[in-house]
Amino acid sequence: MYGVAHTVSKDVVVQDLTHDIPPYDIWVASYRLYQTVKYWAQGSVFVSVVDPGVGSTRKSIAVETLSGHYIITPDNGSLTHIIHYDGIKEVRVIDEISSRLPRSEESHTFHGRDVYTYNGARLACGQVIFEELGQIIDVADIEAMPIMESVIDGTIIKGSIDVLDVRFGSLWTNIPSHFLKDLNINCGDNLQVTIYHENKKVYQNIMKFTRSFADVNIGELLVYVNSLVNLGIAINQDSFSDLYNIGTGNDWLIEIRKAPKIIFE
Amino acid sequence: MYGVAHTVSKDVVVQDLTHDIPPYDIWVASYRLYQTVKYWAQGSVFVSVVDPGVGSTRKSIAVETLSGHYIITPDNGSLTHIIHYDGIKEVRVIDEISSRLPRSEESHTFHGRDVYTYNGARLACGQVIFEELGQIIDVADIEAMPIMESVIDGTIIKGSIDVLDVRFGSLWTNIPSHFLKDLNINCGDNLQVTIYHENKKVYQNIMKFTRSFADVNIGELLVYVNSLVNLGIAINQDSFSDLYNIGTGNDWLIEIRKAPKIIFE
Amino acid sequence: MYGVAHTVSKDVVVQDLTHDIPPYDIWVASYRLYQTVKYWAQGSVFVSVVDPGVGSTRKSIAVETLSGHYIITPDNGSLTHIIHYDGIKEVRVIDEISSRLPRSEESHTFHGRDVYTYNGARLACGQVIFEELGQIIDVADIEAMPIMESVIDGTIIKGSIDVLDVRFGSLWTNIPSHFLKDLNINCGDNLQVTIYHENKKVYQNIMKFTRSFADVNIGELLVYVNSLVNLGIAINQDSFSDLYNIGTGNDWLIEIRKAPKIIFE
Repeated sequence: MYGVAHTVSKDVVVQDLTHDIPPYDIWVASYRLYQTVKYWAQGSVFVSVVDPGVGSTRKSIAVETLSGHYIITPDNGSLTHIIHYDGIKEVRVIDEISSRLPRSEESHTFHGRDVYTYNGARLACGQVIFEELGQIIDVADIEAMPIMESVIDGTIIKGSIDVLDVRFGSLWTNIPSHFLKDLNINCGDNLQVTIYHENKKVYQNIMKFTRSFADVNIGELLVYVNSLVNLGIAINQDSFSDLYNIGTGNDWLIEIRKAPKIIFE
Repeated sequence: MYGVAHTVSKDVVVQDLTHDIPPYDIWVASYRLYQTVKYWAQGSVFVSVVDPGVGSTRKSIAVETLSGHYIITPDNGSLTHIIHYDGIKEVRVIDEISSRLPRSEESHTFHGRDVYTYNGARLACGQVIFEELGQIIDVADIEAMPIMESVIDGTIIKGSIDVLDVRFGSLWTNIPSHFLKDLNINCGDNLQVTIYHENKKVYQNIMKFTRSFADVNIGELLVYVNSLVNLGIAINQDSFSDLYNIGTGNDWLIEIRKAPKIIFE
Repeated sequence: MYGVAHTVSKDVVVQDLTHDIPPYDIWVASYRLYQTVKYWAQGSVFVSVVDPGVGSTRKSIAVETLSGHYIITPDNGSLTHIIHYDGIKEVRVIDEISSRLPRSEESHTFHGRDVYTYNGARLACGQVIFEELGQIIDVADIEAMPIMESVIDGTIIKGSIDVLDVRFGSLWTNIPSHFLKDLNINCGDNLQVTIYHENKKVYQNIMKFTRSFADVNIGELLVYVNSLVNLGIAINQDSFSDLYNIGTGNDWLIEIRKAPKIIFE
């Protein structure tokens, strides 16, 4: 893929976002793409290829986001979070027959190289403009997975566990940090955190809401604000996910409330 | 190695091909190099260092391929597939004493940094030309491993399992896809696939020849055309290699024929 | 982090040194940084973020080394080896409030992106000069871990096992190769190698001092000169560390002496 990009133009700058998306995991691909795009300059071109459906009838699309970034990807749900949180201005369907690496017609299983990188590099270096990549289709017609909304229900914050910070085993929720402010919960307060898997309670404990990992001892639990300004759940220098067997996705729900005061009499 | 390249010239563009070649596995290094080179612009310089023999009498060589690419590598078999499938125009032996990173004389175990990257970067940015890298030797004198040829034997296609698509567990054979056409086998046909290890039959099953993974259900077997336009064997979204303990190399042979029609009377 | 760097300037060149430092392992981070810096051009800017203390009172610092390189890092010991072996010219404390990625104020847990890369890229492309990064502090006031010195004690060389060459399982000691010369030990000589963990002898064997791995058979032990021109201990094409359960750090000491001649009578 690098070679194809540099063959299109010697001047194109290519950087890896990640090669660590679990195979076939479109949800994580969508989440990590959403997390990253906003930190790049407007006009940057992203190629996202987690593609269990390569060779099927799923379309190859190019989108321009409302934030002014371009993404080329299979139409398989990889844009779920971008659509929901950032918004998309225009979608075009790439013609996999006419717009592909010359002499790659016989390969049907490496669109990342033959279609996505090839068109991404041409777009990035100005050999084509976005409008030339294919016909417009409706944003509403591209694939998206359901996204659970976090809510405040009385004194309880309810959300889901979106994704795992895989290197450290921390859990990232879809709960924006300002929900704590809304309930007048501050750094240093103790929270009661409850986790449900398929509606069964699988974990409950008290942990402190802290500014960062350094505010608790090694091995201690914490609720913190992650790099997306959402709430994260972690153990300082250990893997919360591994220790308590907690997973991610829409069937992993989380409830957070101010911990009850315990009074010994 | 990056630092050495950028110190030679600020303008040199460096990209990783892979750091995931199994240690000491020259066969896989050779295969992956062959797979990649043709997708880069002519004149690109490749540094390949899988080098169990560093410090031995094995030579350090620079080659120009018939396709117009340059490769700098130990002479240990890493060019096996390039020699066989693409061809080499000229080979030169690098003098490890005179052509090396200044002040690196005491290190004998990191030629990747001190000899290969240093000369590769100088070649890439024009500080030396290929002819200055060392004395010519005969292409026939450089190391190559035996390569098994695939053949059509009556109605049976015979080949070997060259390499593992390690991230997905699919097997890549050395059988070009046109062998199926030659036997009038088409997409959708069922094939009988038999795998031998050291001449013992270790696997046999019927699987469909499909255009891509998306044409079979999750968990189903398939024969497909890979990105090199050879035949691959896979299970959709699972690891064929892990499930059936199939390895790679010249003692893993494969036979493919049209599946017999089974008639229930 | 890449996106932030390229947003600061399209012309900045970014390369990974490694993403394989074990989480929280400041010692290894410090060692690998020291190992690398000298192979880059003067004026190169390094961002090092192994940061168990993110969000604590540990400072964010920028240093100029005596060798003319810049490093931006948390003040947590990551500069231990650079201080000891290369030396530091000047240290400045980065103000995490004023010198950070615009609109990143709410995130306290991703200084690598918001503070280090942002300032590193500005320094690399000349948007700020080193002196503008913050107030000077004394080199003696920044964090450093104790470094064990290797010594020659009569006929015995004593040192520690600094770090693991993790891909191959070789051990890298802090013993410079010239100590062998000083004791008149030459390539081909047999050495007696003894390893102590917390002052208990855990390993002892005879192995040959060789120019490189290729000088012993596969599976054979060797003492060699590594890419830092220190002594390494290895098994050709196997993992010494795994086989003998040997670790790294200041409580793993090593003694090397010329092997006694054994005379059968």
